[in-house]
Amino acid sequence: MTDLTARLDQLPTPCLVLDEARMRRNVRRLAAQAQALGVTLRPHLKTAKSVEVARRVLTGGTGPATVSTLAEAETFAAAGVHDILYAVGIAPQKLPRVLALRDRGCDLVILVDSLTQARAVADAARAAGKPIPALIEIDSDGHRGGLSARDPDLIEIGRTLHDSGAGLRGVMTHAGESYGVSGRAAHAEFARRERDATVAAAEALRAAGLPCPVVNVGSTPTAHAAEDLSGVTELRAGVYMFFDLFMAGIGVCDIDDLALSVLATVIGHQPDRGWILIDAGWMAMSRDRGTATQAVDQGYGLVCDVRGRVYPDLIVKAANQEHGIIALRPGSSATLPDLPVGARLRILPNHACATGAQHASYHVIPDGPDGELLEWPRFGGW
Amino acid sequence: MTDLTARLDQLPTPCLVLDEARMRRNVRRLAAQAQALGVTLRPHLKTAKSVEVARRVLTGGTGPATVSTLAEAETFAAAGVHDILYAVGIAPQKLPRVLALRDRGCDLVILVDSLTQARAVADAARAAGKPIPALIEIDSDGHRGGLSARDPDLIEIGRTLHDSGAGLRGVMTHAGESYGVSGRAAHAEFARRERDATVAAAEALRAAGLPCPVVNVGSTPTAHAAEDLSGVTELRAGVYMFFDLFMAGIGVCDIDDLALSVLATVIGHQPDRGWILIDAGWMAMSRDRGTATQAVDQGYGLVCDVRGRVYPDLIVKAANQEHGIIALRPGSSATLPDLPVGARLRILPNHACATGAQHASYHVIPDGPDGELLEWPRFGGW
Repeated sequence: MTDLTARLDQLPTPCLVLDEARMRRNVRRLAAQAQALGVTLRPHLKTAKSVEVARRVLTGGTGPATVSTLAEAETFAAAGVHDILYAVGIAPQKLPRVLALRDRGCDLVILVDSLTQARAVADAARAAGKPIPALIEIDSDGHRGGLSARDPDLIEIGRTLHDSGAGLRGVMTHAGESYGVSGRAAHAEFARRERDATVAAAEALRAAGLPCPVVNVGSTPTAHAAEDLSGVTELRAGVYMFFDLFMAGIGVCDIDDLALSVLATVIGHQPDRGWILIDAGWMAMSRDRGTATQAVDQGYGLVCDVRGRVYPDLIVKAANQEHGIIALRPGSSATLPDLPVGARLRILPNHACATGAQHASYHVIPDGPDGELLEWPRFGGW
Repeated sequence: MTDLTARLDQLPTPCLVLDEARMRRNVRRLAAQAQALGVTLRPHLKTAKSVEVARRVLTGGTGPATVSTLAEAETFAAAGVHDILYAVGIAPQKLPRVLALRDRGCDLVILVDSLTQARAVADAARAAGKPIPALIEIDSDGHRGGLSARDPDLIEIGRTLHDSGAGLRGVMTHAGESYGVSGRAAHAEFARRERDATVAAAEALRAAGLPCPVVNVGSTPTAHAAEDLSGVTELRAGVYMFFDLFMAGIGVCDIDDLALSVLATVIGHQPDRGWILIDAGWMAMSRDRGTATQAVDQGYGLVCDVRGRVYPDLIVKAANQEHGIIALRPGSSATLPDLPVGARLRILPNHACATGAQHASYHVIPDGPDGELLEWPRFGGW
């Protein structure tokens, strides 16, 4: 770390910095949790959107993965990932791209939660003479999509997929509402709901004579808090590899687990207002204000020095497109640090998925002694 | 427009759609306003980030422009734009790129608001033996950067720039607080403050024997509401070329002036909750919730049919990374439209700058009869 400051000082700002050692620690933590629970971890790559990160996060570098777009599926499949779940309800117009990816040897599995979708998938599979295996999305907490495990359509959807040759691969749920509660006990309760809902749906399908090999659950809070996943086969999580202020705010991680930050440069001051202006605005941080409704509002991010040491109570209190305004948290008794024009800072983001998406690459502090900075490309789009 | 629906139905979703006729109408409106006020319009390209848009927005396709990043300056200069204002306070580390662009024949002008910056610019200009002309940022409303027109440092900054050979080009202000008020009269008051502050600063510099050829003001609300810009030479605005729900919410434009939308596909329903799920979440819309504090909260966007006709009271009420949840506005007496899985919609965004930045290209409905859709690339980064 001797020359780290000097190396970060060479980078144009704003830019995205990734602490590989922290990332690897986060990855090991959840891998151990999945192993202890006896389930397969299927990391969600929507946060990372990087082949280099995927190589370090997936089992064997290629192992089961989850994605949120077909662009991710296509990019990771081209990089050798051959077991992918596209975990957003399918639009029928996307089935030709799904088939094309499967034809290239990727076991891409899709998601449905309606008879309309199941019939479209069945028709496409019949027309192609090839399977298009799907999971059925189960709603465990009223968050967004999915059927109730007791919905009478469940069996008909399963039968439509199975009988057409498309293939019924199993069931899946996502307890997105777990983001709204804090602490391990509260997250464990949502993990129980994920397990109970999916296991009930799987048992209903099996009782109807249908296959249901996969029972897939997860969100970063529930994945870390789950205590018993009997009947579940796979666990999903995405933001855990980097973590962020939102996850720290609900007690899933500590601030020093955060692997991602935005490097910025001081460009001005308004001493009468106690403001320090930086060249990282919402274009660099994203517009995400997820901590606004948490116990501690972190503004657009928490300010650290270039080595990553947090300044007490110093946050990006406001952001324009290319300007961030740094100030002490309201009511703080801390002293505004002396940060002259040209000084370098690192800002910890509210939401790693959103902040990452604003950047074309990671500048990586490698895990190991005295390494040079690396640059890993990111991608976006659909 | 006969085949427009069919053409939009061919596009993968989510994607960004630009209505060129609306854009040209918005551009003509502000050009006429600048002409009537007797000032030069210097459009801000931070919203568009597209060479194709710049060609249609700038005077003669190359004329004066404003940018928010050096990446924009470099891209537009390479496309033939040779008169550019980089309107974010300069970090000294960025001066080598500024000099390199100036060496390539672009009259790139930078912004300073402190003696520290002015001295760094003066030193760099002396070391290079070349001018690095700058505007001095004036604070007219307490929004972010800039000096008071009466700040004693103003003259010393001007003299430092001028005497070093860097070059004092003039003064600039941005009434960002005008976004927080509604209606022409309120915006006109901020336009008066912009004019009064910059003209006072220009007069102070000239009284000290310093040159001040440029007096530059602007924001989209003040640019449209200004009534008298005596003493001002240049007007800036950016989002006006596309407009957005935020600008409509403060009365700068009407909903049918909005040129930008996100094309999305219905992927599911939760009938018990009155929800329609689409494949445009915050990754496609951005996390911008700028209308949340306005009289009418538009959620993550206002829902239109594929031809751009607004559905009464239908908004994207919530967004996850790749999911949008559409619902009727709370308290609405409208009926939820019947939009089956696979239906195409267009979502008007809160903030064109933020939504545009989430996409790699515009899919353009051309201005003219019966045109094919075009695709214009966008760029990002710093």
